Amino acid sequence: MKLWLNKQKIFDYINDHYPEHLSQLQELLRQPSISAENRGIHDCAELLKGYFNTLGCKESRIVETSGHPVVFGTFDAGADKTIVVYLMYDTQPVDDPGWTVPPLGGRVVDLDPFGKCIVSRGAINTKGELRAFLNACDSIIAVGETIPVNLIFVAEGEEELGSRHLPEFIEQYMSEMQRADAVFFPSADQNQNGKVTMSLGVKGIVYFELELDGKTWGFGPTEYDIHGSNKAWVDSPAWRMVQALSSMTETDGNTVLIEGFYENVVPPSAEDEALLNELEQTFDEGADKELMKVNRFIDDVHGREALLKYLYSPTLNIDGIWSGYIDPGTKTVLPYKITAKVDVRLVPDMTVSEVIPKIRQHLNNHGFHEITIRELESGYGWSKTSIQEPAAQALVKTYRDFGFTPEIWPHVAGSAPFCMFNRAPLNLPFVMGGIGHGGRAHAPNEYLVVEEGGPTGGLATLEKSYVSILDNLSQIL
Amino acid sequence: MKLWLNKQKIFDYINDHYPEHLSQLQELLRQPSISAENRGIHDCAELLKGYFNTLGCKESRIVETSGHPVVFGTFDAGADKTIVVYLMYDTQPVDDPGWTVPPLGGRVVDLDPFGKCIVSRGAINTKGELRAFLNACDSIIAVGETIPVNLIFVAEGEEELGSRHLPEFIEQYMSEMQRADAVFFPSADQNQNGKVTMSLGVKGIVYFELELDGKTWGFGPTEYDIHGSNKAWVDSPAWRMVQALSSMTETDGNTVLIEGFYENVVPPSAEDEALLNELEQTFDEGADKELMKVNRFIDDVHGREALLKYLYSPTLNIDGIWSGYIDPGTKTVLPYKITAKVDVRLVPDMTVSEVIPKIRQHLNNHGFHEITIRELESGYGWSKTSIQEPAAQALVKTYRDFGFTPEIWPHVAGSAPFCMFNRAPLNLPFVMGGIGHGGRAHAPNEYLVVEEGGPTGGLATLEKSYVSILDNLSQIL
Repeated sequence: MKLWLNKQKIFDYINDHYPEHLSQLQELLRQPSISAENRGIHDCAELLKGYFNTLGCKESRIVETSGHPVVFGTFDAGADKTIVVYLMYDTQPVDDPGWTVPPLGGRVVDLDPFGKCIVSRGAINTKGELRAFLNACDSIIAVGETIPVNLIFVAEGEEELGSRHLPEFIEQYMSEMQRADAVFFPSADQNQNGKVTMSLGVKGIVYFELELDGKTWGFGPTEYDIHGSNKAWVDSPAWRMVQALSSMTETDGNTVLIEGFYENVVPPSAEDEALLNELEQTFDEGADKELMKVNRFIDDVHGREALLKYLYSPTLNIDGIWSGYIDPGTKTVLPYKITAKVDVRLVPDMTVSEVIPKIRQHLNNHGFHEITIRELESGYGWSKTSIQEPAAQALVKTYRDFGFTPEIWPHVAGSAPFCMFNRAPLNLPFVMGGIGHGGRAHAPNEYLVVEEGGPTGGLATLEKSYVSILDNLSQIL
Repeated sequence: MKLWLNKQKIFDYINDHYPEHLSQLQELLRQPSISAENRGIHDCAELLKGYFNTLGCKESRIVETSGHPVVFGTFDAGADKTIVVYLMYDTQPVDDPGWTVPPLGGRVVDLDPFGKCIVSRGAINTKGELRAFLNACDSIIAVGETIPVNLIFVAEGEEELGSRHLPEFIEQYMSEMQRADAVFFPSADQNQNGKVTMSLGVKGIVYFELELDGKTWGFGPTEYDIHGSNKAWVDSPAWRMVQALSSMTETDGNTVLIEGFYENVVPPSAEDEALLNELEQTFDEGADKELMKVNRFIDDVHGREALLKYLYSPTLNIDGIWSGYIDPGTKTVLPYKITAKVDVRLVPDMTVSEVIPKIRQHLNNHGFHEITIRELESGYGWSKTSIQEPAAQALVKTYRDFGFTPEIWPHVAGSAPFCMFNRAPLNLPFVMGGIGHGGRAHAPNEYLVVEEGGPTGGLATLEKSYVSILDNLSQIL
């Protein structure tokens, strides 16, 4: 039988090296890596490659794709089991108003009730966890222990763009990937009260723009916004788009009227129902609402009904819309163009490939042939791993080792490219976890708690939980 | 009988002083006066006050209002008749993409087929005409002639904001205004082929924002955009606004469904029908479409049918709309707020005061109580002057003197605060005109032709036409 790690020695090392570990995290956060703007991406990839080298990876290389590169590393521990460590090094943009610190400053700020937090773009989504995981690995080696599983690092730079070129990498490195027993994605899964949640999957996503301009249409202004008085005899692309969009939902803006939108949606599985029975006991909807600054869910539902909506509804969301004059004051123009950014979230058994054709068909059926659909991401499917999988059980054991009973979610509504590992052809169990807390992903003042002693773990606890997860994976897989 | 002016002497002077007159126009255009942004407004008012002084006005003063000031001047010519010269010194913003020259540069550019044009914000709307009118007055005096009517200058700085505080000025200066026989607004009314058009009125306007945010609504995110996956259980203000807007028009985006929207619309008067009979003979719809870069009118109508739409349809126009993430690439957010800028154009006998209550009632009737209406302008009514008025006939005579048969429009679809002079309590005939050409008002690369010899008059012709209008007004009024 394999030996368990000497965790106390490693944990002491982590405690003693908190300042250095925090500095390393700040270094990573201060390196911009905004994939949507191609800002700092290559420099960040180089930084990661260096981190993998420092750790002692046998290979560490930047793998170019048609988009942003993947940073690939292999750590050969001479172990029986091999884990793919999925990481993302890109972040959302930082243009959102409301930041109270420089969004790429890696600033440490006291946030009530958590204590010291690092407030920076990427703090929780997900450079914080990335660096914490590497700190955990470094610490195991620093005290003379051996990392108990072989690691294959796959760090992509396009997660926030829909991982559109990750399949190129996976195809190229298929034989490497097939050696693995499971995939682990380091995350920080305590909520603001310290409760640990564990998610076994994600929804899929398709993201596109709907656009209408007068040139494409043949009606309306074709080249620029014209004087608003001409609305009397010139058609308005903006009004026409409003009509097209409105045909897609009921008046509530929630029930989707795209023909066949719901036809492949399946009800929760037996395992999901069992998990839901447990989940509704501990589900803290007040905490979730507080975090989002939301007073009421749709239809003011609560408890299991809210969970069913959140987990099993596919969605049609307007991420953004713009046309014409959008600055203060009055300017009377008839806009020549309108654009809406829209995303669809997929639940089992919906497929990526069904979405755009159904939108197109709906627009055509309602006479809106002139509206252009521009796919911005290739999209990806949903992902689900059974709680029965040894990899999932290794995470559960870690949480129990730290005194937590995880609240287990059959999946969450967010999207991530887990399906590329979790479903054909790799079919690997995909788990994510870690004991720590952060928030405001995709929003201003994104944060990760770094100090211990508050309601949640800090940076050291997060690193320790990763050490424990590696240890448990090596034993249970 | 009053003597006619020695026009040839004045016209020679204008020809000889073209370079100086152009420089004076450039000076005015380079002085920003963007009312929506309160940019340069007071400096521009001071500049105007100086111009009135230089002309020899008895009084010249900046009259403060609750908004931007009115510049008031009186020129006492010792004449029988008195004209209010209505002017506006403010302009639209310059943020529109597509400018090929600095928008406040007063740059002279060769524009085919016109020859040299001044391309600058305000060139045609309407600092170009303002300065040309003052150049005309200066020239009369410079050659030793007398301006043949007394002038009351009223130059407002909020036309582009709906002249919301002009009524304050008019109330305060009511007794001065009541001395006048007519109001003249210097304009440049040749189209790009040189045809002279004459407009006897304008539509009215009401401009407002419709807004919905989660805090006001009680549903949806209340303080910031949240992660887009939450659409599954959190309402979307953006979708809700789309639904509310879509309820306001037919699918075509043209026919307005606001209850009672059309109830006060009256058919063309007998005089209007007679004018339309003439107008449809010469109406050059191709030229209008080319100027706007529009391929087809609504329903692909032509001729009289297009004119009826343009002149006698009240409109509900989306000037702008925005929500959520509007930059390149993908960001998945559920926006907490959406705003639409909307204007309504009024035709006889619609009133300003009926508009907002009808919009509110419509929203309430359709269950959209949560949507806020924010009035951005106080709004103003339509204005119409009969072609039989002596002031209108003075303009017609001027055009004939210059060899043109004006194409007479009973009114245009644009809006201007003429009703404040033209309707109760002042009830003054309101005429506008001048021989010159410009275009792209409210659009990038706004221009005024300054060189002679092309299909239209240049700056000198424009100034000469104003001399002639003053001369004819003094004889015919």
